[in-house]
Amino acid sequence: MSRVFNFNPGPAALPLPALERAREELLDYRGSGMSIMEHSHRGKDYEAVHNEAISLLREQLSISDDYHVLFLQGGASMQFAMVPMNLLTAGKSADYVLTGAWSEKALSEAKPMAALYSAAVRAAGTTGTGEGKEKSYVRAATEADVKADDAAVYLHLCSNETVHGVQFAVNGEFPHFGKAPVVADMSSDFLWRKIDVSRFGMIYAGAQKNVGPSGVTVVVVRKDLVDAGRKDLPKIFQYRTHVENNSLYNTPSTFGIYIVRNVLLWVKDQGGLAGIEKINREKAWLLYKTIDSHPGFYRCPVDAGSRSVMNVVFRLPSEALEEKFVSESKKAGLVGLKGHRSVGGIRASIYNATGLDAIHALTHFMNEFAKANG
Amino acid sequence: MSRVFNFNPGPAALPLPALERAREELLDYRGSGMSIMEHSHRGKDYEAVHNEAISLLREQLSISDDYHVLFLQGGASMQFAMVPMNLLTAGKSADYVLTGAWSEKALSEAKPMAALYSAAVRAAGTTGTGEGKEKSYVRAATEADVKADDAAVYLHLCSNETVHGVQFAVNGEFPHFGKAPVVADMSSDFLWRKIDVSRFGMIYAGAQKNVGPSGVTVVVVRKDLVDAGRKDLPKIFQYRTHVENNSLYNTPSTFGIYIVRNVLLWVKDQGGLAGIEKINREKAWLLYKTIDSHPGFYRCPVDAGSRSVMNVVFRLPSEALEEKFVSESKKAGLVGLKGHRSVGGIRASIYNATGLDAIHALTHFMNEFAKANG
Repeated sequence: MSRVFNFNPGPAALPLPALERAREELLDYRGSGMSIMEHSHRGKDYEAVHNEAISLLREQLSISDDYHVLFLQGGASMQFAMVPMNLLTAGKSADYVLTGAWSEKALSEAKPMAALYSAAVRAAGTTGTGEGKEKSYVRAATEADVKADDAAVYLHLCSNETVHGVQFAVNGEFPHFGKAPVVADMSSDFLWRKIDVSRFGMIYAGAQKNVGPSGVTVVVVRKDLVDAGRKDLPKIFQYRTHVENNSLYNTPSTFGIYIVRNVLLWVKDQGGLAGIEKINREKAWLLYKTIDSHPGFYRCPVDAGSRSVMNVVFRLPSEALEEKFVSESKKAGLVGLKGHRSVGGIRASIYNATGLDAIHALTHFMNEFAKANG
Repeated sequence: MSRVFNFNPGPAALPLPALERAREELLDYRGSGMSIMEHSHRGKDYEAVHNEAISLLREQLSISDDYHVLFLQGGASMQFAMVPMNLLTAGKSADYVLTGAWSEKALSEAKPMAALYSAAVRAAGTTGTGEGKEKSYVRAATEADVKADDAAVYLHLCSNETVHGVQFAVNGEFPHFGKAPVVADMSSDFLWRKIDVSRFGMIYAGAQKNVGPSGVTVVVVRKDLVDAGRKDLPKIFQYRTHVENNSLYNTPSTFGIYIVRNVLLWVKDQGGLAGIEKINREKAWLLYKTIDSHPGFYRCPVDAGSRSVMNVVFRLPSEALEEKFVSESKKAGLVGLKGHRSVGGIRASIYNATGLDAIHALTHFMNEFAKANG
């Protein structure tokens, strides 16, 4: 077996120990005579895994008792709809901060719910320039970019834009956007470091970047927002249903949550999020330094203060060279470097499980490629 | 490693070859240097698995081109909401046939959507008797039980009630309930045998019984119902979105679908659904015969024609003996036999992957237990 260097944007690399543990136990979970996949979600073996995953998340992020931790299904895309579905009411409005493709999508999915409810959603600020195919985002939003409505039921932002490589609060704290509770899609930078959860009303994240396999969504939600949620919805859509049932109202993705648990044990072994952050900063620093040291060849379009620590995007002098870069890097055992189809270019997704060894291999390849093609 | 006999109601036993294959490939999927969990859902390796799973389902159930096959998330519980959400419109109505706890839940989840839309949902027929804790279901519905509204946008039924052990069409075809398209929750008996898909407008099933691990929902839906679906919903809720994107609109549970593929290859190896049905009928026959051969000790409350081939429920003379049965059977390596908490008693869920060897072990145990305690 030889493992490649995995720069996939998600589903993405998982920590080897988390996978090795799963392999070892796959046919017989801790002497139970069954795979964890074959255990009832209401049995004590699975429930222990489920609760351990929740406890580990609470511990790693110092999540207070003011917040519930849920494991749902459907990814961030489901949350794009569930958030307005629960929190909007007739005559009320919600704010959206636009900093890339994913925050745009969140707003666009909220619009039909607002219409059904006679409520409103609005773009409270955007850092986008241009239109259509020329539309671009090269930085996160500052307080000056956003005209927040303090009466909004929430203000939504995407902390890290996977497609555009634009991240909030890379060096420091999140900006303050008025008084509405902040709902953050953190799918692609959840757990990259410790954050101050108390700054947010709700955080959600598809697991398939830093947390686990696809099919699990982590939701951290403040109790008052759960309580304020609409009650005229099918139960499956109400956050309170999942709170009241400890995310076991319906059958969750049990194996997915088991892998999440394994990943969180690995995070803990790395010295927790402080240790993870240190390595992540070094990885990103090495990559951006390599890009910047070939100014005529590699170019990162993102402003210095918003350059994502998770998704490093860059361009080469031509699309032909970009294609060659992707194809040759693949032959060198570096997988997943093609930029998102909507924007092109190169993207190195360097989530927690993509180690320093992978970065060294990539920067070496980049230096050689620039030398040969520059 | 010693594997137990697994009678869990879901998540449930999976075919050993499907798990063995997963274990072998877990760290390195076919020489790609990554787990299938770490592959992009838009890469060719995963897409081949995804499309093979769809093709195998089409092949095993002879699904015509009039139907789409989708893999969604959220289980049957999500479909309870998505079906009315897509198909109900103001002034229209949908019919529900009630034969147990799950069809009741489907109706109850449809009601808030009907209210939001100024539409209606109604119980078109029920086989339930009694109220509250005394409520019981002992048979599927016949044509005489149901007053169907031919103008309904759909008629919903649950083909196999997991809690009550009541199944439709055990020996023969489904009844004809009027002219509305039939939407069937087949979560717990999908793939137990071949069925005539053309009798249904839509079939949905949580995978965690016969098809795979939890976290994957199979939807088979006729094209005209997809086209008739509402367009004023968030895209994630519209069936057409998933049709147009081959279930890759958002990141699906890739590992879950991979296991579904493995399970379907195993089904094919068993001689397909004809082979599977033959074994399932023998399993159920053996179990019901054992129950009926101890008439003063074991008692199946379900009417002869509705006795589920998947979930065999039975009672003992006292709750104390039922507890003893569960506890001693567990010691004998027979796991998951406790009845659903809402109804009590014993339930043996004998899905496709629970083999004849498990049934022989159970009937042997039942005979011995009756002898010792009768």
